[in-house]
Amino acid sequence: MKKKPQSAAGANRLKVDSARMWNRVERLATLTEKNQPWTRRAFTDWYVRSRDWLRREMDALHLTVSIDAAGNLSGTLPGGEPHLAALASGSHTDTVPRGGRFDGIAGVVAALEAANVLAEHGRPLKRPYQIIDFLAEEPNAYGTSCVGSRGMAGELTPEQLDYTADDGSTLAQAIARSGGRPESLGAPLRSAKDLAGFVELHIEQGVVLEQERRDIGIVTDIVGITRYNFSLGGQAMHAGTTPMERRRDALAGAAEFVVAVEKLARRRASADAYLVATVGKLEVIPNGSNVVPGRVDLVLEARSNRDTVTEKFCRDVIGIAKECAARRNLSLDHRLVSQNDAIHCDAGVQTAIERAAAANGCSSLRMPSGAGHDAAHVGRLCPAGMIFIPCLEGKSHCPEEWTDPEQLACGAQVLLDSIVELDRIIE
Amino acid sequence: MKKKPQSAAGANRLKVDSARMWNRVERLATLTEKNQPWTRRAFTDWYVRSRDWLRREMDALHLTVSIDAAGNLSGTLPGGEPHLAALASGSHTDTVPRGGRFDGIAGVVAALEAANVLAEHGRPLKRPYQIIDFLAEEPNAYGTSCVGSRGMAGELTPEQLDYTADDGSTLAQAIARSGGRPESLGAPLRSAKDLAGFVELHIEQGVVLEQERRDIGIVTDIVGITRYNFSLGGQAMHAGTTPMERRRDALAGAAEFVVAVEKLARRRASADAYLVATVGKLEVIPNGSNVVPGRVDLVLEARSNRDTVTEKFCRDVIGIAKECAARRNLSLDHRLVSQNDAIHCDAGVQTAIERAAAANGCSSLRMPSGAGHDAAHVGRLCPAGMIFIPCLEGKSHCPEEWTDPEQLACGAQVLLDSIVELDRIIE
Repeated sequence: MKKKPQSAAGANRLKVDSARMWNRVERLATLTEKNQPWTRRAFTDWYVRSRDWLRREMDALHLTVSIDAAGNLSGTLPGGEPHLAALASGSHTDTVPRGGRFDGIAGVVAALEAANVLAEHGRPLKRPYQIIDFLAEEPNAYGTSCVGSRGMAGELTPEQLDYTADDGSTLAQAIARSGGRPESLGAPLRSAKDLAGFVELHIEQGVVLEQERRDIGIVTDIVGITRYNFSLGGQAMHAGTTPMERRRDALAGAAEFVVAVEKLARRRASADAYLVATVGKLEVIPNGSNVVPGRVDLVLEARSNRDTVTEKFCRDVIGIAKECAARRNLSLDHRLVSQNDAIHCDAGVQTAIERAAAANGCSSLRMPSGAGHDAAHVGRLCPAGMIFIPCLEGKSHCPEEWTDPEQLACGAQVLLDSIVELDRIIE
Repeated sequence: MKKKPQSAAGANRLKVDSARMWNRVERLATLTEKNQPWTRRAFTDWYVRSRDWLRREMDALHLTVSIDAAGNLSGTLPGGEPHLAALASGSHTDTVPRGGRFDGIAGVVAALEAANVLAEHGRPLKRPYQIIDFLAEEPNAYGTSCVGSRGMAGELTPEQLDYTADDGSTLAQAIARSGGRPESLGAPLRSAKDLAGFVELHIEQGVVLEQERRDIGIVTDIVGITRYNFSLGGQAMHAGTTPMERRRDALAGAAEFVVAVEKLARRRASADAYLVATVGKLEVIPNGSNVVPGRVDLVLEARSNRDTVTEKFCRDVIGIAKECAARRNLSLDHRLVSQNDAIHCDAGVQTAIERAAAANGCSSLRMPSGAGHDAAHVGRLCPAGMIFIPCLEGKSHCPEEWTDPEQLACGAQVLLDSIVELDRIIE
């Protein structure tokens, strides 16, 4: 199905095949636990079958297939100048339980489609082009997400590799079962010497593109994520016999904190600095309708593309919590659970995506990614960027997750043209 | 163990025996599920054994023992003028799971002690004196608390009697197993014609007496209790990708409501009107640290000794919830779960208790009961009142529940003298 070359900057010479991509999305959607679509958790039989399918697709395009030490499955299309560092694209094929058909999958299928078009057009790139299915991006039985991209970046710690799942096996063993070599992990597996650039296509998992009616999000940063556990301790008392002024109500204190977190995050978020803060998880103890709450445990999560903004925000809300606890005679414990720095996407990659979008008549928007992605880890190794496509009502990690075939095709076309552009401009 | 009669208003002629009472408290404490003291739930084997013990204690005092249609166990000491209506005292011997040794029990033991002293002193009252162990005051497998006192007041509905527990039996069957005659329930079992007055001794289950350093609480009212279920519906969204201004965060809305409930209750509570309002139960859905809360279900409970205060309070907080939901674009459901009116204790009974306290050199305080009690139901039949004694740190419904032997003895003495005083003053 060769297409006729077009004029100009080459941007419209190579055309993705929307129907072929959609068929692949639907094919992958059949590889799910049948009683709870769509569920293809990492390391399970359905996941192994999806990777077998992907390997066959790569073989059919005569890509050089390999699995790296971190268990990432890749297929490489040779370039005109084989000694040059590769350009790469990819995402993941695992899902959360009862997840969707696009999160991760859209990026793998789009990367595969780019390889397909390039292969059909006689391998027009000077650099090798590699597609990567990162191992186990979603939360899984081994306590660590983004297993493959972390491993590629040399970020998996011995503690993470030793983590033992309920079935008694360790993450290291699970990586080995996936074809990796966990004993070789520790240092980065790739560097700018063999990886010239990386572009990941992904559904936005938010409502910004849909509400702003844009085809393409050009990701500027991937937010850093900081999580704290808070515990507010009061006294569980009889809700009838304890007058208001004698209470130490942990929930009333926590409620004041939740309101303050929202208010401060709204005030600090700006055009310059993306900031979201959430109390998504909150437990009341003992949680009886006739008992003044004795303790509340909650998780505070803050995300920003500016680490200094996150740091100051967390410092300030901890100060608010302390003041609130002191005024209400509550105990307060807070503990940092995790902290990841923001990653700034490569300026050259952003420009390439922007040009590709413009050349295809796609509207675009520069925006941060509020979600973590494999690209955040690959971004530590080489120039990296991301293309967002819209998804229906921002829904993700649920069966209702949806993006239109045209939206996927638009994103894949921009991905392909970005790769072509990067191949042209990177020295 | 006769005591020497004393002078004056007879208040100090009859003396309770603190050690005898304490032994009875300790004896009842042995009748518990052994692996989780103290657990003697209504209708269980341990409960049956506790009532068997109580019946033997009544028999030893030559009381006339009977069980009424509602399953209440009573023992009656004849008075000098048998045709007169009885004076009564009592409480309950059942507990919550992992409850304490005093809630209910203190009132039964004190009532028994009064009978004991009166029997020893040659039955000095003109009226019969009756002690009552009310059936199943605490929450139990049949969905209704205060089973016996409700039944006595004619308040058990056919629906309540038909309630089926997990074992397939109905409340009516459980009452019959306890010696009651559920087929005779419906109308009040007693009236002012055969019940001249009722006084219940109970631990306060709060911190007021302890903090105010008073020996005796003279209960002025037993609060009415109103409960509403609230459900606030927003949208569960990705906590990273959903900017603050695009959120419909059900927890942030609920938190605002919880703070407003506390603030309004504090403002409306006064010396004239007791008012407490509590959100003790709250559930976040889906309750994930990285998901903007999509729904919050909570229970609002308001208690006051003035029904008009409760009504206005609930009306106003519902208004606050509606305004909050509208401003935040949240859905709001609220549903009345239960509503009981306040009971005002008899003025004559309050005066008798006050005099008895003063005659014994006990400090006292008039106060409402924020908790429901059997006396609230008996109060619909005849003049009724309550004596509160302090309990450690207000703890109740837990193994740490505690009152000192001296505090119990002080309360029992005031109870006995109140009965003597009521016998003297009631025509």
